[in-house]
Amino acid sequence: MFYHDKRLQYYTPPDRPDPIYAKKVQELIGGTFGEMTVMMQYLFQGWNCRGPAKYRDMLLDIGTEEIGHIEMLATMIAHLLDKAPIKMQEDGAKDPIVGAVMGGSNPNHVITDILASGLNPQHLIVSGQGATAADSVGYPWNGRFIVASGNLLADFRSNLHAESQGRLQAVRMYEMTSDHGVRDTLSFMIARDTMHQNQWLAAIEELAADGLETGPVPSSFPQELEKGEHAYQFWNHSQGRDSEQGRWAHGKSPDGKGEFEYVANPEPLGSEPNPPVGEPRLYGTSMVKPTNGAVRSSESTKL
Amino acid sequence: MFYHDKRLQYYTPPDRPDPIYAKKVQELIGGTFGEMTVMMQYLFQGWNCRGPAKYRDMLLDIGTEEIGHIEMLATMIAHLLDKAPIKMQEDGAKDPIVGAVMGGSNPNHVITDILASGLNPQHLIVSGQGATAADSVGYPWNGRFIVASGNLLADFRSNLHAESQGRLQAVRMYEMTSDHGVRDTLSFMIARDTMHQNQWLAAIEELAADGLETGPVPSSFPQELEKGEHAYQFWNHSQGRDSEQGRWAHGKSPDGKGEFEYVANPEPLGSEPNPPVGEPRLYGTSMVKPTNGAVRSSESTKL
Amino acid sequence: MFYHDKRLQYYTPPDRPDPIYAKKVQELIGGTFGEMTVMMQYLFQGWNCRGPAKYRDMLLDIGTEEIGHIEMLATMIAHLLDKAPIKMQEDGAKDPIVGAVMGGSNPNHVITDILASGLNPQHLIVSGQGATAADSVGYPWNGRFIVASGNLLADFRSNLHAESQGRLQAVRMYEMTSDHGVRDTLSFMIARDTMHQNQWLAAIEELAADGLETGPVPSSFPQELEKGEHAYQFWNHSQGRDSEQGRWAHGKSPDGKGEFEYVANPEPLGSEPNPPVGEPRLYGTSMVKPTNGAVRSSESTKL
Amino acid sequence: MFYHDKRLQYYTPPDRPDPIYAKKVQELIGGTFGEMTVMMQYLFQGWNCRGPAKYRDMLLDIGTEEIGHIEMLATMIAHLLDKAPIKMQEDGAKDPIVGAVMGGSNPNHVITDILASGLNPQHLIVSGQGATAADSVGYPWNGRFIVASGNLLADFRSNLHAESQGRLQAVRMYEMTSDHGVRDTLSFMIARDTMHQNQWLAAIEELAADGLETGPVPSSFPQELEKGEHAYQFWNHSQGRDSEQGRWAHGKSPDGKGEFEYVANPEPLGSEPNPPVGEPRLYGTSMVKPTNGAVRSSESTKL
Amino acid sequence: MFYHDKRLQYYTPPDRPDPIYAKKVQELIGGTFGEMTVMMQYLFQGWNCRGPAKYRDMLLDIGTEEIGHIEMLATMIAHLLDKAPIKMQEDGAKDPIVGAVMGGSNPNHVITDILASGLNPQHLIVSGQGATAADSVGYPWNGRFIVASGNLLADFRSNLHAESQGRLQAVRMYEMTSDHGVRDTLSFMIARDTMHQNQWLAAIEELAADGLETGPVPSSFPQELEKGEHAYQFWNHSQGRDSEQGRWAHGKSPDGKGEFEYVANPEPLGSEPNPPVGEPRLYGTSMVKPTNGAVRSSESTKL
Amino acid sequence: MFYHDKRLQYYTPPDRPDPIYAKKVQELIGGTFGEMTVMMQYLFQGWNCRGPAKYRDMLLDIGTEEIGHIEMLATMIAHLLDKAPIKMQEDGAKDPIVGAVMGGSNPNHVITDILASGLNPQHLIVSGQGATAADSVGYPWNGRFIVASGNLLADFRSNLHAESQGRLQAVRMYEMTSDHGVRDTLSFMIARDTMHQNQWLAAIEELAADGLETGPVPSSFPQELEKGEHAYQFWNHSQGRDSEQGRWAHGKSPDGKGEFEYVANPEPLGSEPNPPVGEPRLYGTSMVKPTNGAVRSSESTKL
Repeated sequence: MFYHDKRLQYYTPPDRPDPIYAKKVQELIGGTFGEMTVMMQYLFQGWNCRGPAKYRDMLLDIGTEEIGHIEMLATMIAHLLDKAPIKMQEDGAKDPIVGAVMGGSNPNHVITDILASGLNPQHLIVSGQGATAADSVGYPWNGRFIVASGNLLADFRSNLHAESQGRLQAVRMYEMTSDHGVRDTLSFMIARDTMHQNQWLAAIEELAADGLETGPVPSSFPQELEKGEHAYQFWNHSQGRDSEQGRWAHGKSPDGKGEFEYVANPEPLGSEPNPPVGEPRLYGTSMVKPTNGAVRSSESTKL
Repeated sequence: MFYHDKRLQYYTPPDRPDPIYAKKVQELIGGTFGEMTVMMQYLFQGWNCRGPAKYRDMLLDIGTEEIGHIEMLATMIAHLLDKAPIKMQEDGAKDPIVGAVMGGSNPNHVITDILASGLNPQHLIVSGQGATAADSVGYPWNGRFIVASGNLLADFRSNLHAESQGRLQAVRMYEMTSDHGVRDTLSFMIARDTMHQNQWLAAIEELAADGLETGPVPSSFPQELEKGEHAYQFWNHSQGRDSEQGRWAHGKSPDGKGEFEYVANPEPLGSEPNPPVGEPRLYGTSMVKPTNGAVRSSESTKL
Repeated sequence: MFYHDKRLQYYTPPDRPDPIYAKKVQELIGGTFGEMTVMMQYLFQGWNCRGPAKYRDMLLDIGTEEIGHIEMLATMIAHLLDKAPIKMQEDGAKDPIVGAVMGGSNPNHVITDILASGLNPQHLIVSGQGATAADSVGYPWNGRFIVASGNLLADFRSNLHAESQGRLQAVRMYEMTSDHGVRDTLSFMIARDTMHQNQWLAAIEELAADGLETGPVPSSFPQELEKGEHAYQFWNHSQGRDSEQGRWAHGKSPDGKGEFEYVANPEPLGSEPNPPVGEPRLYGTSMVKPTNGAVRSSESTKL
Repeated sequence: MFYHDKRLQYYTPPDRPDPIYAKKVQELIGGTFGEMTVMMQYLFQGWNCRGPAKYRDMLLDIGTEEIGHIEMLATMIAHLLDKAPIKMQEDGAKDPIVGAVMGGSNPNHVITDILASGLNPQHLIVSGQGATAADSVGYPWNGRFIVASGNLLADFRSNLHAESQGRLQAVRMYEMTSDHGVRDTLSFMIARDTMHQNQWLAAIEELAADGLETGPVPSSFPQELEKGEHAYQFWNHSQGRDSEQGRWAHGKSPDGKGEFEYVANPEPLGSEPNPPVGEPRLYGTSMVKPTNGAVRSSESTKL
Repeated sequence: MFYHDKRLQYYTPPDRPDPIYAKKVQELIGGTFGEMTVMMQYLFQGWNCRGPAKYRDMLLDIGTEEIGHIEMLATMIAHLLDKAPIKMQEDGAKDPIVGAVMGGSNPNHVITDILASGLNPQHLIVSGQGATAADSVGYPWNGRFIVASGNLLADFRSNLHAESQGRLQAVRMYEMTSDHGVRDTLSFMIARDTMHQNQWLAAIEELAADGLETGPVPSSFPQELEKGEHAYQFWNHSQGRDSEQGRWAHGKSPDGKGEFEYVANPEPLGSEPNPPVGEPRLYGTSMVKPTNGAVRSSESTKL
Repeated sequence: MFYHDKRLQYYTPPDRPDPIYAKKVQELIGGTFGEMTVMMQYLFQGWNCRGPAKYRDMLLDIGTEEIGHIEMLATMIAHLLDKAPIKMQEDGAKDPIVGAVMGGSNPNHVITDILASGLNPQHLIVSGQGATAADSVGYPWNGRFIVASGNLLADFRSNLHAESQGRLQAVRMYEMTSDHGVRDTLSFMIARDTMHQNQWLAAIEELAADGLETGPVPSSFPQELEKGEHAYQFWNHSQGRDSEQGRWAHGKSPDGKGEFEYVANPEPLGSEPNPPVGEPRLYGTSMVKPTNGAVRSSESTKL
């Protein structure tokens, strides 16, 4: 069960409105790696967790924290959308810009029109100056963005990745504004992303220390059941050997269980595919056709 | 530019048809972590790559290999859908099952009906016994499944993760059949997933060795710009301290740049949100209402 | 900011596993009117709320409660998926059912196969016996399911509706099982839906009592700006007059501002559409064609 | 069966083109609460209706009217997209704006560029100046937007809500333009939304008068089967008691069947979740691990 | 504007209920090439049409007919879902199947369970035995399924194609049942698909006869602006020359404007891609790294 | 299996960056008829092909070519996004535009702001100046865009159509820029689209010449099973007879098997729908209601 505290985890209001930036902030709420993703991902991993209590509790703690991050960003969007222009000024359409700029009564019309044409129209029409559950191009967040597989190592690698994209995007957003309030709030969130990247690296260590999971995922699958001769080969699917210059082409594999091999000129091991003849009542095009329509016809009617 | 070789990279035909299993194989083609994802993800990462040639070439090599993996699975599905029942036998609806089983002319009707009711109907109606670009519940693959951020460490962590889920799912599929042909083909793909997990771990090492990227992602963002006091804290968002028992709550952080701190009873640092009054022409509900309709009305008409 | 209590709001474990029912429970989690919808809808409405504090607080209280409802259902799914069959038994494919039933070593194979063919394959392959953020056919929850318009009356009508569909679906699910544990848990959730339907009706009353919003939504838009002569007419778009027999065709309108009128034989008020000629460089088919290709061609090259 | 009349239900052409506004009009066609939604929702409710003929006929009448509303808006978009700029003028990139404005031959380039950068690119590339089946950010209309549950009270509440959001959005669009033609056409649609809100309120009355449905939905479910002690409680999931100040916290419930109770400090009624051990062949992380790999391995091979 | 006639265009009721078949019928309503697609596609093409009146009228006539086809199929689904089993009988879970079959009181339980596990759960939980706006796996119809480009030849080719897939799927559905009522209704729809395939072929002829559009689409684009030397070449992207055996590799091209050429061993005409260095403030991985963090840092803060 | 050549099939770099145009180019990559669609469509058709080897090989050859087309466009986007403005300059917000234009230090700010407000924000935040798997409004490519039915004539009609929309869109994009590099690259792709339209027309001829498939699709379904009297009728669903003026209303049908007939005043052939009474435990609204709640209640509890 959950409780709410009316205060925000952290927040500094923006210096001034900026509806174009509000559109972009949606990426951090409802984008593939936005706060809705990490919140839902950690909560579902926690709820589905059958491992030791510390993992479940840790997952639910951080998932609960992330709900509050959406709250911070939604509040930011409310401020950024304040005074958003709700229509084009249209002077330009009637008079040359030179007129509007030089002699018109409202020289800010060009700026207004840039904002009005570039903001997310749903921020006005649909949400009335509020945040939405969508990303920066208006595509809605969806449940396929999250991962909860039941294998904690697989999932912690997902979490490490999500926090990496999350911090990368937050940092890009930091660079994409000069607003001190926005930057201050983001600098808190970036710090939390630093923590969370470290947290998942530590959790991966912990899984190994507890003897629960190591690589390759899933480590409890008996490796003698896989085709071992291909388990450490790099196949060079192109001409030239640039791809041979990396750590992945030579030496001991990171899982400690094999030696990398570079296959410079790989050949297919299988033969050409040879699919069976199709079911005639599905009317696909097959090598062998029914000899005549009458036969097919009576076959159809008698079924 | 790309070329095709008519032979499959590897393939052993299934022992016998199995339309229910064919439905499940779609997860490995068009699921969130299916072959379409890794193919498209590696190709887009390669095409977008601005780093050294070895990374671009390596990404495109493996992306090219993955196209062939879809090809193998699509061929498997064609075999598994052979002789799929196209309709219910309906004996049961007319006569009690006991009759059908004991004295009917076709005692396999129950089995047929189980298959006919449980298979993916689009495998008959839409694709005519062919593979589709969708997952095991028929949800189509989509472009939000892939990641290509321009930051190679962020993306290699994604790749490591994708191969982890991919191998986990392939292994589960291996356990979910007794068919020797299917298992043999999967055992090749599982081996490749072992390689690819190792490959991305090695590529992460290489990025560090080349001085390009380390953690936390993105490592070139100056950490003094984040709120450092919160960058290594675990916030316990629940009662009890189970979450304190892990590596993530104490000791040196894995990035080597901080010390974990466990905040047992975290308090909000911000205040209650206080959004500005809404634009009246959007007709949201605000604390302050327009004093009378006439004013609003004339405002509307004069615009 | 949010906190988690490790205990569930309410819960009685299922009597026994039932993977088919687990598939259906997903509707109550990730369906259009599942708990993810009401949770996210109330939280976003609360975060976007610019009205009096009691509305914001009330919205966030109930949104916070709903997070815990997902938690209860995810726990239910974990129990229902216990011992789910991971593959077909295949006796049937080898021997007639009569053999399996009468003399085989495992007469439960038919039941197992029904379950294995009908369960949600992602419950095994993707989530490893855990709940997913999707509905009963595997379609993921998405952000377009929620409504937060900034107008509280519009939104409370949405909430009233969501709780109506929610209780209807929960009641159907109650009827679709005989499991006492499942029914007990659902009977708690059904009671909460009763409360929540009443709550939104009361909140609609409160908005009117506070002088904030009444119908028609949005009530502050000056009705003299709409085409008043058509604001209370029922247009009969078919032959016959069955549709005249209802309250909507005669008498005072519920908003108290008009009188219903039944238009038995409505005629269009507009003329035939007459769209302008298309831009030639978009190569649509227009009434007027470019006179010759050469002209178009030079036009193209000079741009 | 359906028939078409070539004339529009109502229409006044826009004063002048406006491609940015055309982008926004898409919300009224293909948005969550656009005309496609109400059209399809009422038609499906009518087709699925098993109630008295007057309800079915009424639903199909209004659904049929709504098809014509899409037609009006699609015509409006054709006019608004007339003369839409198909490319950037690019002077700005070559010369400073000051030059373009002051001495250039085409001072309208800035305005053109604002329009060209802000319009919906699919209005040119995909539809060639025509309307699309999508909303104002280009997200396609989809079938999950509609509701047809078979329970008429649940569905009429949905309809009441849809017309509320619909009128709210139309009114916002009215305020977002100064074009007299557009406003005139919208003022007709807003009037129809007024009717339709009233219509659904009247239809809800009618259901009660006919003894078919009342609240809480579904009213025929025996309330003694729900946990009655929780059916009229408000749970305060936060500190402070702002949420106690509303009608929902005290007094008779609107369904007349209970008395509201405010639970100021709610405690969970359930215990901590305790999911069963996972199926080992799904390779999730469980409390109890297989004792050794060899056992798992032989288990795998013998299946 | 549109009108409704209460009678169906054509209809014969099913002989008996069949919830599994009802699930499949959804493909013909809400699938990629279902009736919702052709209805919406023809209506939008008609509304967007700027060509001669006969095309617009013809498009709207057939679009209007298709609305009635959804109506027929929705009615069929209502009949097929009659008496659908709403839960598993569960005898099997308690007793061996042999017991249930031989001595139980309800020997139809196995059949019931097959139906209950295989039907679309949303047909019960969500729509209460009604049709939904989704396909046979429950994926909702969406606006990207339709095409209305403004170029009538491009669109008529789409229509020809849609009717081809539509008739193919209807025919498959015809083969997938033995129900005489269902087959009779489908045989009407299949006949209409025959007409509509012919209609679009005739419409393509008419466009040419009217001098409006021929191939290649769009025919008014000056072909001297394309790279003519590659406009009639088949590139053999594989080893072997099977692909040379077809009409597409030799002889006059069907548009009458070129001669096919078979390029047996194609080579790339371009060079290796060489993307520019990335913007450093986006923190992608580039060949050239910022020389030190301090520089980046001050750059960040001063912005 | 597939191979990669590091060189591009064809490519001329853009003259200069243009982030707005980059947004539009996404339509050609990930739009409904973009290169991802034709690539995946031809590959899946090839993999699913059960017809003669020449068809399979031809399909896979062209599918393989299309992978390289995505590669070309992704490279183009990397160049177009070079130097994309990452934030608004904001002078305008502080000072009147007149100030910025006339006396400011950076008169290009207006242009920069137009670009910054109109570009795809995900090109910066998500992909870091790289191409994405989405269309020009950011909607992701998905697997429902492709068609592979198993019937080659149905599918070749789809391919003909896809190349028609594809060339139409490429030509529009050609007109929407003045950049010589972009136009040169597009002129190669337009030429390939010319080839591919011709290729599919030739392939349709070949299917007929081989005696495999003709119209109406599927031609092997016995036409005596369809309602022949309606197979060549045009139904005029509107008043007036504009739709009679076309080739589709009179004369021999293109399939050579019928004669068109124009039905000027069509009447429904079916009766009013009469759906059966609903299952009471689903709580829909039916004509016949349960006589009292107590009966329903005991029914519920005893299940």
